[in-house]
Amino acid sequence: DFLSALDDVKPLFGVAEEELSKRLRHGIIHFSPFIKDILEEGRLYINQVRKPESSPVLSVALHGPPGSGKTALAAKMAIDSGYPFIKLISAEDMIGFSEMQKVQQLDKTFRDAYKSPLSVIVIDSIELLLDWVPIGPRFSNTVLAALKVLLGKEPPKDRRLLIFATTTERSVLNQLDLFARFDAEIAVPNVNTQAELANVLRESGAFSDSDQQRAISEIQEITGSTEVGVGIKKILTGIETAKQDQDVPGRFARVMSRAIAASRGSQS
Amino acid sequence: DFLSALDDVKPLFGVAEEELSKRLRHGIIHFSPFIKDILEEGRLYINQVRKPESSPVLSVALHGPPGSGKTALAAKMAIDSGYPFIKLISAEDMIGFSEMQKVQQLDKTFRDAYKSPLSVIVIDSIELLLDWVPIGPRFSNTVLAALKVLLGKEPPKDRRLLIFATTTERSVLNQLDLFARFDAEIAVPNVNTQAELANVLRESGAFSDSDQQRAISEIQEITGSTEVGVGIKKILTGIETAKQDQDVPGRFARVMSRAIAASRGSQS
Amino acid sequence: DFLSALDDVKPLFGVAEEELSKRLRHGIIHFSPFIKDILEEGRLYINQVRKPESSPVLSVALHGPPGSGKTALAAKMAIDSGYPFIKLISAEDMIGFSEMQKVQQLDKTFRDAYKSPLSVIVIDSIELLLDWVPIGPRFSNTVLAALKVLLGKEPPKDRRLLIFATTTERSVLNQLDLFARFDAEIAVPNVNTQAELANVLRESGAFSDSDQQRAISEIQEITGSTEVGVGIKKILTGIETAKQDQDVPGRFARVMSRAIAASRGSQS
Amino acid sequence: DFLSALDDVKPLFGVAEEELSKRLRHGIIHFSPFIKDILEEGRLYINQVRKPESSPVLSVALHGPPGSGKTALAAKMAIDSGYPFIKLISAEDMIGFSEMQKVQQLDKTFRDAYKSPLSVIVIDSIELLLDWVPIGPRFSNTVLAALKVLLGKEPPKDRRLLIFATTTERSVLNQLDLFARFDAEIAVPNVNTQAELANVLRESGAFSDSDQQRAISEIQEITGSTEVGVGIKKILTGIETAKQDQDVPGRFARVMSRAIAASRGSQS
Amino acid sequence: DFLSALDDVKPLFGVAEEELSKRLRHGIIHFSPFIKDILEEGRLYINQVRKPESSPVLSVALHGPPGSGKTALAAKMAIDSGYPFIKLISAEDMIGFSEMQKVQQLDKTFRDAYKSPLSVIVIDSIELLLDWVPIGPRFSNTVLAALKVLLGKEPPKDRRLLIFATTTERSVLNQLDLFARFDAEIAVPNVNTQAELANVLRESGAFSDSDQQRAISEIQEITGSTEVGVGIKKILTGIETAKQDQDVPGRFARVMSRAIAASRGSQS
Amino acid sequence: DFLSALDDVKPLFGVAEEELSKRLRHGIIHFSPFIKDILEEGRLYINQVRKPESSPVLSVALHGPPGSGKTALAAKMAIDSGYPFIKLISAEDMIGFSEMQKVQQLDKTFRDAYKSPLSVIVIDSIELLLDWVPIGPRFSNTVLAALKVLLGKEPPKDRRLLIFATTTERSVLNQLDLFARFDAEIAVPNVNTQAELANVLRESGAFSDSDQQRAISEIQEITGSTEVGVGIKKILTGIETAKQDQDVPGRFARVMSRAIAASRGSQS
Ligand SMILES: Nc1ncnc2c1ncn2[C@@H]1O[C@H](COP(=O)(O)OP(=O)(O)OP(=O)(O)O)[C@@H](O)[C@H]1O
Ligand SMILES: Nc1ncnc2c1ncn2[C@@H]1O[C@H](COP(=O)(O)OP(=O)(O)OP(=O)(O)O)[C@@H](O)[C@H]1O
Ligand SMILES: Nc1ncnc2c1ncn2[C@@H]1O[C@H](COP(=O)(O)OP(=O)(O)OP(=O)(O)O)[C@@H](O)[C@H]1O
Ligand SMILES: Nc1ncnc2c1ncn2[C@@H]1O[C@H](COP(=O)(O)OP(=O)(O)OP(=O)(O)O)[C@@H](O)[C@H]1O
Ligand SMILES: Nc1ncnc2c1ncn2[C@@H]1O[C@H](COP(=O)(O)OP(=O)(O)OP(=O)(O)O)[C@@H](O)[C@H]1O
Ligand SMILES: Nc1ncnc2c1ncn2[C@@H]1O[C@H](COP(=O)(O)OP(=O)(O)OP(=O)(O)O)[C@@H](O)[C@H]1O
Ligand SMILES: [Mg+2]
Ligand SMILES: [Mg+2]
Ligand SMILES: [Mg+2]
Ligand SMILES: [Mg+2]
Ligand SMILES: [Mg+2]
Ligand SMILES: [Mg+2]
Repeated sequence: DFLSALDDVKPLFGVAEEELSKRLRHGIIHFSPFIKDILEEGRLYINQVRKPESSPVLSVALHGPPGSGKTALAAKMAIDSGYPFIKLISAEDMIGFSEMQKVQQLDKTFRDAYKSPLSVIVIDSIELLLDWVPIGPRFSNTVLAALKVLLGKEPPKDRRLLIFATTTERSVLNQLDLFARFDAEIAVPNVNTQAELANVLRESGAFSDSDQQRAISEIQEITGSTEVGVGIKKILTGIETAKQDQDVPGRFARVMSRAIAASRGSQS
Repeated sequence: DFLSALDDVKPLFGVAEEELSKRLRHGIIHFSPFIKDILEEGRLYINQVRKPESSPVLSVALHGPPGSGKTALAAKMAIDSGYPFIKLISAEDMIGFSEMQKVQQLDKTFRDAYKSPLSVIVIDSIELLLDWVPIGPRFSNTVLAALKVLLGKEPPKDRRLLIFATTTERSVLNQLDLFARFDAEIAVPNVNTQAELANVLRESGAFSDSDQQRAISEIQEITGSTEVGVGIKKILTGIETAKQDQDVPGRFARVMSRAIAASRGSQS
Repeated sequence: DFLSALDDVKPLFGVAEEELSKRLRHGIIHFSPFIKDILEEGRLYINQVRKPESSPVLSVALHGPPGSGKTALAAKMAIDSGYPFIKLISAEDMIGFSEMQKVQQLDKTFRDAYKSPLSVIVIDSIELLLDWVPIGPRFSNTVLAALKVLLGKEPPKDRRLLIFATTTERSVLNQLDLFARFDAEIAVPNVNTQAELANVLRESGAFSDSDQQRAISEIQEITGSTEVGVGIKKILTGIETAKQDQDVPGRFARVMSRAIAASRGSQS
Repeated sequence: DFLSALDDVKPLFGVAEEELSKRLRHGIIHFSPFIKDILEEGRLYINQVRKPESSPVLSVALHGPPGSGKTALAAKMAIDSGYPFIKLISAEDMIGFSEMQKVQQLDKTFRDAYKSPLSVIVIDSIELLLDWVPIGPRFSNTVLAALKVLLGKEPPKDRRLLIFATTTERSVLNQLDLFARFDAEIAVPNVNTQAELANVLRESGAFSDSDQQRAISEIQEITGSTEVGVGIKKILTGIETAKQDQDVPGRFARVMSRAIAASRGSQS
Repeated sequence: DFLSALDDVKPLFGVAEEELSKRLRHGIIHFSPFIKDILEEGRLYINQVRKPESSPVLSVALHGPPGSGKTALAAKMAIDSGYPFIKLISAEDMIGFSEMQKVQQLDKTFRDAYKSPLSVIVIDSIELLLDWVPIGPRFSNTVLAALKVLLGKEPPKDRRLLIFATTTERSVLNQLDLFARFDAEIAVPNVNTQAELANVLRESGAFSDSDQQRAISEIQEITGSTEVGVGIKKILTGIETAKQDQDVPGRFARVMSRAIAASRGSQS
Repeated sequence: DFLSALDDVKPLFGVAEEELSKRLRHGIIHFSPFIKDILEEGRLYINQVRKPESSPVLSVALHGPPGSGKTALAAKMAIDSGYPFIKLISAEDMIGFSEMQKVQQLDKTFRDAYKSPLSVIVIDSIELLLDWVPIGPRFSNTVLAALKVLLGKEPPKDRRLLIFATTTERSVLNQLDLFARFDAEIAVPNVNTQAELANVLRESGAFSDSDQQRAISEIQEITGSTEVGVGIKKILTGIETAKQDQDVPGRFARVMSRAIAASRGSQS
């Protein structure tokens, strides 16, 4: 029964892993000790769901600011789980879908997962799946209702399911009465300190030690602060843009300062 | 006539009982004397509907905070009623349904029930059936209208029907002019005191006496209060997570403290 | 012409009377002299419509608090009219209908009535037909529009029509510009005094004289008032529940006190 | 060309006249000199449209309180015009129509009218055609748009059209930017004074002189005022109800006083 | 290429001119020197579009109070342009059209115009095309979006297009972000002074010199002001109505005074 | 693989370039040194995307006031990129499309781009694609959701994509949570100073030196300011209109002054 179920889901398995690997294009840089803590907490939930006496479904929400690495971390955990069924649910694969079609896609993925004894589903960017827009506000009530039900639904006998979901909109999901339905939550942080930023720059290999120091002190000068507070994603793209310029650290400092300002603006 | 009606509904019967048993995975722990009172009040209504001279339809609303055990208690009462027709209506079985399809499903279940001389229907999580979202607010007017009518509709001659419904949203249902249409209501409480929590921990078998005491006193320390105020469901999941950790009582204390804080936040 | 028209509507007639009788399951208890006044006023309108020189259509709204007996009284008047065509329009028979289907059903019933020289139509719970919800507020504009037109529409030559309609939402219908379109209105009262309540208990045969007195004085004690203010329907159901208990008057007092509190809460 | 056009519209003609006559069931009572003024103003517009050198389309709005006789007066004018094409547009003939179907019906009636050299169209109760509800407010934008265009649209060559429209909602139509599109307006008054009321009672033949006086002075006593301010329609229905009672003037006084109170309530 | 394109559009041409002529039923009365200025400004734009080196599309908005003559002036300019393709877009030809059908009609007219080397399109009463209602406010977003795009869209190579559009709702179109998309605007004035009004009366031939003076001075008396401020259209209709009366100047004065009051009311 | 992909997209390529050239009808006038900076920044991003080690998708938003030249500049950059696949997405090609059809068109264009190793897509006037209207506000949530996803979606392996998008509504896109999803932004300025305006007039060849000076000083006189603040597009159209007049600089001054006033009005 276990093996035949496995056969059933194998073709899906490969596809999903490729999709998930694409989310890890820059790997995981350990710019802060929190990164290790997050990955360990993930392993804890992976073990809990393996235990036959524990609840057969467990849902974990990864939340944090834009570009902080939520999707990459969820992908990493899912890939490392070793579960036979792994699947990514993403708005990217539902462009032009009606609300009903999205719900059917969600439902189908869960039904597929129920065919495997052990499954992990990554639901990426819940706010995008919900078509959330702060003006109005607007969102898909149909998709929201389906997510609420699917998070709490018990799998069939002898089937066990772990759900990782990512979102930038923790407080919105709270207001929508969705966030509290997760069994656990993991906060994913920005790159916040100059030391953390230095770690990222070192790993990137694009900066000499002195360039790195110059870039960081120029950022401090422009922004008038030692705080960084930007997602790892923006930093990595900023490095790429800076590399096109003759003055790499100078360009990087200007690009980052703009990102820091934008990030502060949207927070307040 | 009685027997043929019974034959008619038998296949439905089995399915429903299995569905209802799944809601009782952790059984009913008597962590407080109120649990017995609730089950007794349920039996009172079960007896009333049996009486041929009383009204042929009676509806009872079980309301209480999230995870307090409403669904488990309603399932328990329905299974113990001994009525020939028992059926669960749940949003889980209606994912991706249109409003109209939900209403048709509701209507069909009631029509099926009317085929049996004695029936009990459990309507689980009315707020989910209504697609209630506080933002807007939004809800399905079509499903709401159907529920209003079905609660008051008299069964055909010689048919008698008991309805148990569960909800976390008593005051919302009141504003929607639905709650007052129930004939009776039962309040389901959280695990509120340290003594009640100790009862649950003892029953779980996962804590030694000293571990139990340590966990409870650590919770008091972190939350700064002797009040608990968390649903039995969160407590049971918290025990499962804690069991994965080397320091079981410590982990349990941290997980519970977070749950207590979240629970307080959503109340105020 | 008269006879052939009569033939046409006969099959409808029987069905309707059975439906209406179901609304009179507990008969009409004369707990107050107002009940007789109401029935007499009904007879006055029944006579008026019979007169060939008077307007060929007359509409009467019965309004009052929930469970006060509006539907039972309208059913009683319709059955006692002796008119050859009697029909009940109720949301119970339109579960899952679209707005358009409801309008077609309304229209059809009026067209059927126009086939008989003398007809009475009971429109039960207009607010339910309109899918009225105070949140929003929401209601079916399509059904509302149809009702407005049908109330004022003149029957074909030599056809005469009396309409009884019931509602708990007099002021809502007023705001919707529907109530003023009725030609007359009848207010249906709650059971308001201890004397009236005593009349109901006596008629029920479930209480000895001393039990009756004990129940009433316990209610006064719990609620701290001699006012009752509850619909006859809740009282009759309360008696049924109390009869399951060993302490009948005590249980009745508790159940009624809760109903009185709820009734006051919704009024203010 | 004139004659063949006439042939074309003849069958429509008869139907419409019957429909219009039904609106005149109680005739026109000259309870005030204003009634004659109104009918004369109608004749003026009828003459104007006949003149080949004047504008080929003219629209006149009759507005006034509920039941004041707007429809009856418009019907009277249309019937007395002697135009070869006369047609009534009423919500009564559009029950259950979609907005689009209403517009098509409107459009068709105008197209039919354009086939006759001289036509008069009565558009009854514009607010009902628009499904106007003050809550929201709601109304059919599609019907509104069609009316705006049809009022201003020039008929084909050698075709001339007069439009009478009735409404209780002058200020609403103003806000909807519809009222100003009428070429002329006629105000239809209530029965406002005791003298006017006496004229109506005398015409009805249901009151002796002394009964009449008693009724009027009782109304003054109950309402505490000599002002009447009720539509002729309510007065005529009130007389019919009173005739069922043994005490005709007494009943009439009570019924009228209620109507006067209701009328005052809705005005303020 | 030019000639074959011309052939293609010829049948459309005739129809449009007839339609446009109907809008000029009373011709253009030069009651003020502004009228000549307006027509000259129109000719300027007509010349500009003819120039091969200038932008191939130019849009001009005629805006002013109701009945001020916007449509007649746009029709006059279009007819006098001498362009091979002339077309009127009017809500009158789209009664009962869905929003999509309106857009398709708009799009088709522009595509037809693109077949001719030189085209002029008159878009009449944009606010009607948009189904604009101030309550809500409501309007067709679909038609609005199409108009925005069509105004800015460049014709194919060697095709040149002039657009005249009329509206009473300049400030609304501004808020809808439509007005600013016009390349030029022309303000059309009311008949504002007694001298201007006298010019109109003289041209109409319906008044002797003394009647004219009497009418004007009576208007001044009734309105208490020498200002007129009414559209030419209302004045011309008022003359027609007055001609049915024995006292032509007296009637005219009363009708105009009412129009002046209404016009002032809607302005403030 | 590269070549066959190229073959696939060739027919699309030609069409797009023609479409883009039409947006450059007046070329690029270097009225300010900023224009060169903008074009250089564009080249930087074009180089970055070429690099195989950098992120495979990069999106750049060109934002600025109406008519400031955003579309022309984006077209220029795209044409000069030398990428094998170039495509323009514009609301002009989607008149009368449903929201779903727009999304499908967007999706198709991106899929087509993914067939080429290097692609640039110009998304013109995002606010028009979204059917944005400030009243409401209204916008297409479906198109918005698709844009959000498409901006972040990673192309298939070995495919690289650069996106230029233009908008006048930077702050709206920010509120819609769309703007922050762009990797970079370029601000496009108005013609702001008299010196810049003089550069444009000189380039146009329509003004003698003295005419140019006269025009500019007349504008200063009328507007009472030396600030210009108008988009290059309005200035170029203004020159064309002025050329039809005998007094070219005078007419130009009047037209420009009106444009300056309008531009100021909409800013505050
Ligand atoms: N410690 C880290 N944690 C997460 N991602 C990292 C880390 N180090 C490097 N990365 C890289 O940073 C990028 C993070 O982007 P990712 O899309 O996961 O962020 P996100 O938070 O999901 O963004 P968004 O808010 O847009 O959904 C990935 O390319 C990933 O490989
Ligand atoms: N005394 C009890 N009452 C109810 N449930 C109990 C009790 N003791 C143990 N349980 C277990 O606790 C869990 C209660 O979960 P249940 O889903 O019934 O809660 P709920 O209130 O319906 O939650 P929700 O608000 O999410 O609908 C069940 O697994 C049940 O077996
Ligand atoms: N005097 C009475 N008037 C009305 N009903 C009475 C009376 N006496 C006894 N009854 C019984 O009370 C019940 C009244 O219920 P009914 O459904 O008519 O109330 P209702 O006002 O229509 O309720 P709702 O507000 O829910 O529509 C019926 O069962 C009826 O037989
Ligand atoms: N002077 C009168 N003017 C109008 N109607 C009169 C007059 N005298 C008698 N009637 C009668 O009064 C009734 C007026 O009713 P009618 O339906 O025309 O009123 P209404 O103003 O159109 O009402 P509603 O506001 O409901 O549309 C008709 O039956 C008509 O025959
Ligand atoms: N100087 C004038 N300018 C415009 N119209 C004139 C003039 N003199 C006479 N007319 C006549 O006045 C009428 C103007 O009506 P027209 O429908 O053009 O006004 P409008 O402003 O478009 O009205 P609306 O606001 O209702 O669209 C036409 O019949 C036209 O022949
Ligand atoms: N320096 C310049 N930058 C941009 N456009 C220029 C420049 N010089 C001349 N032009 C011309 O000015 C016009 C700019 O119009 P364009 O449509 O690009 O403006 P836009 O900002 O996109 O307008 P809109 O806000 O309406 O979309 C084009 O015809 C272009 O050829
Ligand atoms: Mg992500
Ligand atoms: Mg539950
Ligand atoms: Mg009822
Ligand atoms: Mg009427
Ligand atoms: Mg016009
Ligand atoms: Mg542009």
